[in-house]
Amino acid sequence: MTATTQQDSFQLARWLRDAQPEALRELLAEAGGSQVLTFALGLPPTECFPQEAFARATAELFRRDPEALQLGAPYQPIKRHIVELMRQRGVECTEEEVFLTSGAQQALGLAAGLFLETGGRVLLEETSYLGFHHVIKPRSPQFVTVPTNLDDGIDLDAVEAVLSKGERPALMYAMSDGHNPLGISLSPAKRTRLAEMARNYRVPLIEDDPYGFLLYDEVQPPPMRAQEKRWVFYAGSLSKVLSPSLRLGWLLVPPELTSRLSILRQSMDIDSSNLAQKAATVYLESGHLTTHLTALRRELKARRDAMLSALERHFPAGCRWSRPSSGVFVWVELPKHVNTLELLRVSLREEKVVFVPGSEFWCGKDPSGGRNCMRLSFSNLAPAQIEEGIGRLARALKKIG
Amino acid sequence: MTATTQQDSFQLARWLRDAQPEALRELLAEAGGSQVLTFALGLPPTECFPQEAFARATAELFRRDPEALQLGAPYQPIKRHIVELMRQRGVECTEEEVFLTSGAQQALGLAAGLFLETGGRVLLEETSYLGFHHVIKPRSPQFVTVPTNLDDGIDLDAVEAVLSKGERPALMYAMSDGHNPLGISLSPAKRTRLAEMARNYRVPLIEDDPYGFLLYDEVQPPPMRAQEKRWVFYAGSLSKVLSPSLRLGWLLVPPELTSRLSILRQSMDIDSSNLAQKAATVYLESGHLTTHLTALRRELKARRDAMLSALERHFPAGCRWSRPSSGVFVWVELPKHVNTLELLRVSLREEKVVFVPGSEFWCGKDPSGGRNCMRLSFSNLAPAQIEEGIGRLARALKKIG
Repeated sequence: MTATTQQDSFQLARWLRDAQPEALRELLAEAGGSQVLTFALGLPPTECFPQEAFARATAELFRRDPEALQLGAPYQPIKRHIVELMRQRGVECTEEEVFLTSGAQQALGLAAGLFLETGGRVLLEETSYLGFHHVIKPRSPQFVTVPTNLDDGIDLDAVEAVLSKGERPALMYAMSDGHNPLGISLSPAKRTRLAEMARNYRVPLIEDDPYGFLLYDEVQPPPMRAQEKRWVFYAGSLSKVLSPSLRLGWLLVPPELTSRLSILRQSMDIDSSNLAQKAATVYLESGHLTTHLTALRRELKARRDAMLSALERHFPAGCRWSRPSSGVFVWVELPKHVNTLELLRVSLREEKVVFVPGSEFWCGKDPSGGRNCMRLSFSNLAPAQIEEGIGRLARALKKIG
Repeated sequence: MTATTQQDSFQLARWLRDAQPEALRELLAEAGGSQVLTFALGLPPTECFPQEAFARATAELFRRDPEALQLGAPYQPIKRHIVELMRQRGVECTEEEVFLTSGAQQALGLAAGLFLETGGRVLLEETSYLGFHHVIKPRSPQFVTVPTNLDDGIDLDAVEAVLSKGERPALMYAMSDGHNPLGISLSPAKRTRLAEMARNYRVPLIEDDPYGFLLYDEVQPPPMRAQEKRWVFYAGSLSKVLSPSLRLGWLLVPPELTSRLSILRQSMDIDSSNLAQKAATVYLESGHLTTHLTALRRELKARRDAMLSALERHFPAGCRWSRPSSGVFVWVELPKHVNTLELLRVSLREEKVVFVPGSEFWCGKDPSGGRNCMRLSFSNLAPAQIEEGIGRLARALKKIG
């Protein structure tokens, strides 16, 4: 307890007064230091970072660029590399359409900030990325939610039903690949249909694609941005493929919006780190990313396979889970009576293993939504640890009956 | 002109629709590449960056920290160094009060975001930092402005008049040292009085101190935060003393607000670059900053002196300017009939020298406010260039009569 008197207390902005500090986040953070096996975080495997190659690139940058520490305009040369990366994803774009950001999270914030008024409406799935909820919260938005599921994702009939009756949300939000938290990827037909709805109903669609370069199948359809360049706002990132510590992301936008985005950006933090942009450019020039991505995908695929087979062996009948072809998450639906928040308490305390309960991602009307579900990340642990962790989780599950 | 039809146009958030893309910013950016001498930007001198020492620190970091590229919580060890830097500024604070940000700009955004509702009131000087206007714009605030001047800064009787009649703005904004754009520092008595008003009237006061470590006099009073730790929200930065490219800033806040700040931060960009935080920590550990700051202050003092003496020699009677003991700006008041926007056009075209017209910083009621003023930065040019540039400016001034 603080000794703060009523008179001494701050008058916080309303939405912040109502916002609950996340007990769960703190719980999971606590778990970080100890012997706990974590399926909670979707971080790249630390042992896979191309640290030597990146250190070489940074040293090279300091040798050749006397302005490495100076402030500068968004660094043009990295945009050429992003255009090339997008081409590999099947997306045609130009450097003028690339707006550099501090990670994909800021790209989402900028895209939302372009269109969302205080109290405005946002269409998204009932189960969706928590970080996007955070991004729009300060505008106290109305959530227009549509069903989604671990078989084929967002319910497009429901989207069409909303839009065809004349409702026009300020924006829509979706993920084509490696859905967070569902671990699914949309079929080509669904991508086409959602992109068309964005265009036909003239509702900006944010396509969040941080995991889009982590593909485990031979063939993968391109993201929705490949089909609609005006109404689809694509958010990309180097966080999952190179390093989250660099905070390098981008938003693909029609160039006519760039000057407005700059104004919006100035209200946040003026500019990204030029140093990170330049060091990443030298790294990308070296061509090392291709080698690195191949190794990273191979490792993540092995971890995914380890998790799917461990689930198969350890989890009881009546459970279902996604089989991701992209990204780092598996979504598990447990029998209806299981409460995964309760499961988390037991699994942390008695089995030293953690995950994120499904209710965290829920933004639909039913207050019990997602309660019997959990999100498991397979990116943080080696295959043997994954096997061990899933075994422990299954034991915890038995304990709570 | 784009061929966009009415039907195809985006429905932007209202405040953004009204925001004018900054013609001036583009004009100045254009000037960047050419032979133009610029007094427009307050950047540290490129030739003064401690690039070798920082490159060594970065290489050392990559050698010793296998998680250098991983995402992490705000990096605790750098907070110890910030506490020590603040102690050198005469401010006692604890690591728990240090909230790390992406530059001081984001620190301002976070502090404002804590308290400001859409349409809320903000008390600030009629002539004040443009970047702070940018930060609050998305909330469409009401500006409660008070007079200020180049002799002793913010008019505290005017502040008292607002507050004593019962008005309670959501926040106040001020700078103690190296005022941007006025180049003045507040007297000890004014610091004490403003800090007391914040506490007595319970109005959060943002103290913006990016230039606070660039001091040219032997003795300088500590910032307002030294006198009031609850109601003064201090924004600091390594941008002007180490590197603006790192985007490393901080906000000093009562620890009870940290969890709310984290929620607010998640709506922006989740986290700062851990890599930058860690590399800066290794650099700060080396003790090199002390040497660097001594050299940087000496160089900036020489540039300030060059500018003041050049103004003395070249500028006509009827002009007044500030004599900064801190920061990088000199504010010049020209005779009433001079319009500095017009002067800028002539000085850019015919004399190849640029500055920022005073009207850019004006947010008071009088639409002609600041029109006969200009902000000159002395940090970007060597003394001989400053002499040359001020001479050219004086010629341009003669031309427009």
